[in-house]
Amino acid sequence: MSRRVAVVGAGSSGLVCMKCCLDEGLEPVCFESSDDIGGLWRFKENPEPDRASIYHSVIINTSKEMMCYSDFPIPAHFPNYMHNSLIMDYYRMYADHFQLTKYIRFNTHVLNIKKRSDFSRSGQWDVETKNKDGRREKHIFDAVMICIGHHCQPNLPLHDFPGIETFTGKYFHSRDYKTPEEWRNKKAVVIGIGNSGGDIAVELSRVTKQLYLSTRRGAWVLNRVGDNGIPLDLLFNRLFNILRNVIPFSLVCSFGEKRLNSRFNHSLYNLKPKHRLFSQHPTVNDELPNRILSGTVHVKPNIRRFHGSSVEFDDGSIVDDVDLVVFATGYNFSFPFLASNVVPVSENQTSLYKYVFPSELDRPTLAIIGLVQPLGAIMPISEMQARWATRVFKGCIKLPSSAAMQRDIKSKQEAMAKRYVSSQRHTIQVDYINYMDEIADLVGVRPRISRLLLTDPRLGLNLLLGPCTPYQYRLRGPGKWAGARQAIFTQWDRVAQPMQTRPCNEPEPRRSLKWPLLLSAAVVGLTAYYYKNSLLVFLQDLAALLEKMKSYLPTH
Amino acid sequence: MSRRVAVVGAGSSGLVCMKCCLDEGLEPVCFESSDDIGGLWRFKENPEPDRASIYHSVIINTSKEMMCYSDFPIPAHFPNYMHNSLIMDYYRMYADHFQLTKYIRFNTHVLNIKKRSDFSRSGQWDVETKNKDGRREKHIFDAVMICIGHHCQPNLPLHDFPGIETFTGKYFHSRDYKTPEEWRNKKAVVIGIGNSGGDIAVELSRVTKQLYLSTRRGAWVLNRVGDNGIPLDLLFNRLFNILRNVIPFSLVCSFGEKRLNSRFNHSLYNLKPKHRLFSQHPTVNDELPNRILSGTVHVKPNIRRFHGSSVEFDDGSIVDDVDLVVFATGYNFSFPFLASNVVPVSENQTSLYKYVFPSELDRPTLAIIGLVQPLGAIMPISEMQARWATRVFKGCIKLPSSAAMQRDIKSKQEAMAKRYVSSQRHTIQVDYINYMDEIADLVGVRPRISRLLLTDPRLGLNLLLGPCTPYQYRLRGPGKWAGARQAIFTQWDRVAQPMQTRPCNEPEPRRSLKWPLLLSAAVVGLTAYYYKNSLLVFLQDLAALLEKMKSYLPTH
Repeated sequence: MSRRVAVVGAGSSGLVCMKCCLDEGLEPVCFESSDDIGGLWRFKENPEPDRASIYHSVIINTSKEMMCYSDFPIPAHFPNYMHNSLIMDYYRMYADHFQLTKYIRFNTHVLNIKKRSDFSRSGQWDVETKNKDGRREKHIFDAVMICIGHHCQPNLPLHDFPGIETFTGKYFHSRDYKTPEEWRNKKAVVIGIGNSGGDIAVELSRVTKQLYLSTRRGAWVLNRVGDNGIPLDLLFNRLFNILRNVIPFSLVCSFGEKRLNSRFNHSLYNLKPKHRLFSQHPTVNDELPNRILSGTVHVKPNIRRFHGSSVEFDDGSIVDDVDLVVFATGYNFSFPFLASNVVPVSENQTSLYKYVFPSELDRPTLAIIGLVQPLGAIMPISEMQARWATRVFKGCIKLPSSAAMQRDIKSKQEAMAKRYVSSQRHTIQVDYINYMDEIADLVGVRPRISRLLLTDPRLGLNLLLGPCTPYQYRLRGPGKWAGARQAIFTQWDRVAQPMQTRPCNEPEPRRSLKWPLLLSAAVVGLTAYYYKNSLLVFLQDLAALLEKMKSYLPTH
Repeated sequence: MSRRVAVVGAGSSGLVCMKCCLDEGLEPVCFESSDDIGGLWRFKENPEPDRASIYHSVIINTSKEMMCYSDFPIPAHFPNYMHNSLIMDYYRMYADHFQLTKYIRFNTHVLNIKKRSDFSRSGQWDVETKNKDGRREKHIFDAVMICIGHHCQPNLPLHDFPGIETFTGKYFHSRDYKTPEEWRNKKAVVIGIGNSGGDIAVELSRVTKQLYLSTRRGAWVLNRVGDNGIPLDLLFNRLFNILRNVIPFSLVCSFGEKRLNSRFNHSLYNLKPKHRLFSQHPTVNDELPNRILSGTVHVKPNIRRFHGSSVEFDDGSIVDDVDLVVFATGYNFSFPFLASNVVPVSENQTSLYKYVFPSELDRPTLAIIGLVQPLGAIMPISEMQARWATRVFKGCIKLPSSAAMQRDIKSKQEAMAKRYVSSQRHTIQVDYINYMDEIADLVGVRPRISRLLLTDPRLGLNLLLGPCTPYQYRLRGPGKWAGARQAIFTQWDRVAQPMQTRPCNEPEPRRSLKWPLLLSAAVVGLTAYYYKNSLLVFLQDLAALLEKMKSYLPTH
């Protein structure tokens, strides 16, 4: 039985790994190379090598009820989309509450992690570290959890930009961007329309003379503020997810694209990509349309070449006197402290069983946590992975054979290749609900919705038609939390509370089930219209189920 | 017949007044107290007394096709919502094209404007000015056009804020706000949720530790980016306007409020006012919802009192350590160079016939231009007023009797009092289409839509279902412009062109009549549903008309 677990990194994944170790009676030792927790989310004025770095204004694009750890709701008065400083506050509360800090060795670099000679029997690892004073230490661990994220090494593809060496302005990777003031009344180009690129373009455009946003592919742009002002990610529920899994990909995309175009026509704004909505990691940006319509952001194609202070784009247009180019071209990940054959990485492609376990180790005592790019929040996913991994370490859960794991890896890679635009960005994509349910099944904590609909219909309906908040995975099984049911019933209160800063006379609008029910019905109707025959059976079953449920509907 | 016309001010109204004088064979002399044209729209780092002043980032909230002068479209490549620097560019083009600058005496203050002793016969005015060197001059004019706007004197109601004298932070009126940088990581309160207040709150919230937006009444918040990304003001057409005039006010408001709430629920965001949507001058702000949802803007009620660095709000909540308070509390207007009995003003209330002519003068040789607060753009309205006023000066148009004018003034004041929240803000409100048509009728340039639907159906349908762009008032009558018809047919091209900065493969989306037709039909349907009986006759007529029109529909 594993006892001591090395946790590499004390960011959002490392923190929850320690907590899960403690829950399972394992002893975590966390090595954190900096002097504080928080990882990516800790703002520092000066970026450090091999470490993620954020700009001053970063606000997370998943809402608090979707991004929290499953047994530790974010305080009710915190805003729905949190500034990075508030995310740090939450992490500190979490670390304090579960007394995690004492397990962390700060200012300690992990130099290498090697299988011990008796690995095939013991599953143990030799871990060598170096502290601030340069003192090296060797440790033996029964298991290792690697929580270094995937925003370590900036991807700066200068070789794709001929003439960059002649460029007379300043250029840097988005990780080195902090605040816009320096660029007032200058001309700037941002390369890349991912979330960083979009954010930085919008922010710079408020001070620059002109901002150009260069994108090879274009993008579908989502809003944080969803219909009726509800955080977007709270609008997507399990019923939608069932439909999305059932309905052909192309129809799901068409439906989504139509909705996005009703906010702003992506063709008119020249952002429309050739690929479909769900073939790319989404760009979330509420302010970009307004900046484009006011001409402060000009959307441009890819850059063909640089020449002095001029930038030439693929359409032949040239912008002169460019002062700044920001490469918002993403990140690469790697595991420099691991022998290259343990977790091989090539162009951000790696082969991990459900993105966690190397499939070819004799013993399952190494887990990579948080190495996913979800359509949704990463924190609850890291937590679910950690719950799974710690129980695997303990021997409570067995992994399948190496061959079976490799088949699973291969089928996931094929599905990803089929669905996503081929890109270094799209090697670790997961859909939040599907992936959470998949791992939760292995851990034995997936909520039993059909049973709940009968035994606890109020809860069951909330699970089916409400947002798929992480509390759903604490209702049963190992790590069951007594507060989970109540946390689900009060989640809409926590959404509304931070905005109760000015008393309005009328009674507070409370989220009822009416709206998701109606919308769901509309979705069902629309689907039926597009896809009559093969869905008929499914819809009949669903209708029968809902009919049966009616008598259980709570009154409001 | 009037010959020489004094124009006071060379802003958006003054420029077009000179142009209209020239069109009518009058000789304008424009007195501009500063050294440049543009008035409100010219950004200056340091505000000057008795002059409007804007912040660096101001972008106008009416779109270019709706705000242009009617015979001088804004260049196709200009963005739809223009930054103040681009508005200045447009004014310079206008002044150059019509060679207006030579009529302007810069750095010249108007000291007083008095009726000449023979005024009742001659209608002439004595005008005294002072130039930069302090030299005074006396002039005689046949008519006077006052174009000083209504953003001259900041309204700073300190007496409504007990304890303000103890406040240890900094406070100033929104006119003194320029850029946010100074307030990074500070706490700031913005008072007032008008357009300045909303803009400044959002901008400050990106750098401050916390931003509080204090509003007594709340507000309905509109977006620049309308459905499908079309500029909001282009979505409102004559058909909608007919319906709005016919349908009860409360239903119109309900329909609009429902749409605004579908963007974000004003109750959930605690912005919902007690008054109806169209009872307040609209606040346009695309970014406020996102800032509230991310908690960077806290909406607060009115301020009860200041005490040192603390601010206490009406709900009893207290915010300590406030560094900055911005009073976005609007402006007052007055005419200090006129004898107080010529155009009396009390709390922004004045008595002008259709907001232009004092009703009690013996001769109609004094016009106040641009003293309106439209739901729409002010520039075309100033232009229409100037076209009317110059033709009145010339004697081509007669004003009604003083008694008739006063009846008209009174009925307008009553309508305004009935519809709007009682406030200094709501003394000069006009609805764009209704007011333009009203004055255009007097000038003889109101488009004859029913006739056009038969004789030039393509144009007629564009007038009825397209945006009510100012070109519509150059199709006939005095000042008819040969380019007007073409300008109307190409207006959607000018909307799309500034965004054509990245070639998309698919054919450019062109605005067809399909969408407005469908939407109009939907509106008609909805109206019918709410208001079946009394609208039935109207709808039947309309249906018959549309039926008749079908054969004329252009093919696409």
